[in-house]
Amino acid sequence: MNAPGKLIGVGVGPGDPELLTLKALNALKSADIVAHFAKSGNPSNARASVAQYLQPGVTELPLLYPVTTEEVSSSAAYRSAIQEFFDKSAADVAAHLQAGKNVAVLSEGDPLFFGSYMHLHVRLMNQFPTAVIPGVTAMSGCWSAAGLPIARGDDVLTVVPGTLDERELLRRFQQNDPTVVMKIGRNLAKVRRSLAAAERLAHATYVERVSLENQRMMPLTDKLDDAAPYLAIILVAGRSWAA
Amino acid sequence: MNAPGKLIGVGVGPGDPELLTLKALNALKSADIVAHFAKSGNPSNARASVAQYLQPGVTELPLLYPVTTEEVSSSAAYRSAIQEFFDKSAADVAAHLQAGKNVAVLSEGDPLFFGSYMHLHVRLMNQFPTAVIPGVTAMSGCWSAAGLPIARGDDVLTVVPGTLDERELLRRFQQNDPTVVMKIGRNLAKVRRSLAAAERLAHATYVERVSLENQRMMPLTDKLDDAAPYLAIILVAGRSWAA
Repeated sequence: MNAPGKLIGVGVGPGDPELLTLKALNALKSADIVAHFAKSGNPSNARASVAQYLQPGVTELPLLYPVTTEEVSSSAAYRSAIQEFFDKSAADVAAHLQAGKNVAVLSEGDPLFFGSYMHLHVRLMNQFPTAVIPGVTAMSGCWSAAGLPIARGDDVLTVVPGTLDERELLRRFQQNDPTVVMKIGRNLAKVRRSLAAAERLAHATYVERVSLENQRMMPLTDKLDDAAPYLAIILVAGRSWAA
Repeated sequence: MNAPGKLIGVGVGPGDPELLTLKALNALKSADIVAHFAKSGNPSNARASVAQYLQPGVTELPLLYPVTTEEVSSSAAYRSAIQEFFDKSAADVAAHLQAGKNVAVLSEGDPLFFGSYMHLHVRLMNQFPTAVIPGVTAMSGCWSAAGLPIARGDDVLTVVPGTLDERELLRRFQQNDPTVVMKIGRNLAKVRRSLAAAERLAHATYVERVSLENQRMMPLTDKLDDAAPYLAIILVAGRSWAA
């Protein structure tokens, strides 16, 4: 019987293959199995970021969501399907770990910051050795691309998912902290209304596909339609740089 | 007359030299000048993270703080001294840029997230070409080391500097968000009291020198003294993983 393999959450950064860390690169090169989450029928963004670094002949384990991340997560059917999917994915990964294989799980951005990897981690961490390699978050990619000093001195940074209801978004925006809004997608119109109500629309920057060749970035007031990728991000500058 | 050089903010990550990105590494290798902030008499942490990657004979430009970051930032004398220091540093960097040299400025963690680089950036961005290379933040390093999924689903992440006054800390902690407390240092006792008052002490993890060989990490309830480095971090888990 082999010693069990190690589960490794590998942050691959916001998308640009150059934003991978040396540690992530080394983990990919020494892993027996490289697993990645993707929507069925769509290529994995995380895999695209590292495609050029994968060893020839490495075993890949695609983990394909049965539902899209944009479905209403409060529905019981969604929650049941997604829990079942993470249970099944963890079992698939566990089989390789039990066979003594090291499994690297690719994560866009940082593995434990809104990443799917965490659902494997919490299911397997008590049975197997684990390691998590932090990555550059998409939000760091965004404020770096914008050249916007997001937080300094006594600032409080607030990171809000656009999925919150409008009242809660407004309450958070009214705190006047520098704020990052993630998970934009179909929440864009709601986020825009809430920012306007909090009188912060003029300080908001919209960014999609950050760090990739087709990155788009503009003042939110210049974004006239409501179509946005789920992973688009809005940055809202705080007070300290307004003065 | 040369074309002006480029100002490049280079995020070097939390400390482990392996947590540098490939992009940061390439920027270091092609820079004419490598600048780094440090306290007078102390080596630069950021420089230590990249020492092994510096080209032999590269020109270094140390920027030495006239005061420590722990002095009370509300004092007029402190603010005046630090503004003067950033003005002088920007002038020193500008002289190299004007001479056509590319200047890479090392930043612990991520350059525009509570980093000193931003003070050069805002002073020089209208006169010179700039680029910012995002880095892995110390807080990502901390929750990765702890194996703590910090934010998921509809969570709001709050990042709070320990320098806030006790009432404001309490108010933020009472929001029950997953929370990162930065700039611990001499604020530890105050932060601990505020967490206790908000009934969140049991969910707090203390981390110092994250990702380095002498990293220390423990439940905050096991940290009995009040001595902490300025860059120590406390992670406070949110509700979603308590259930």
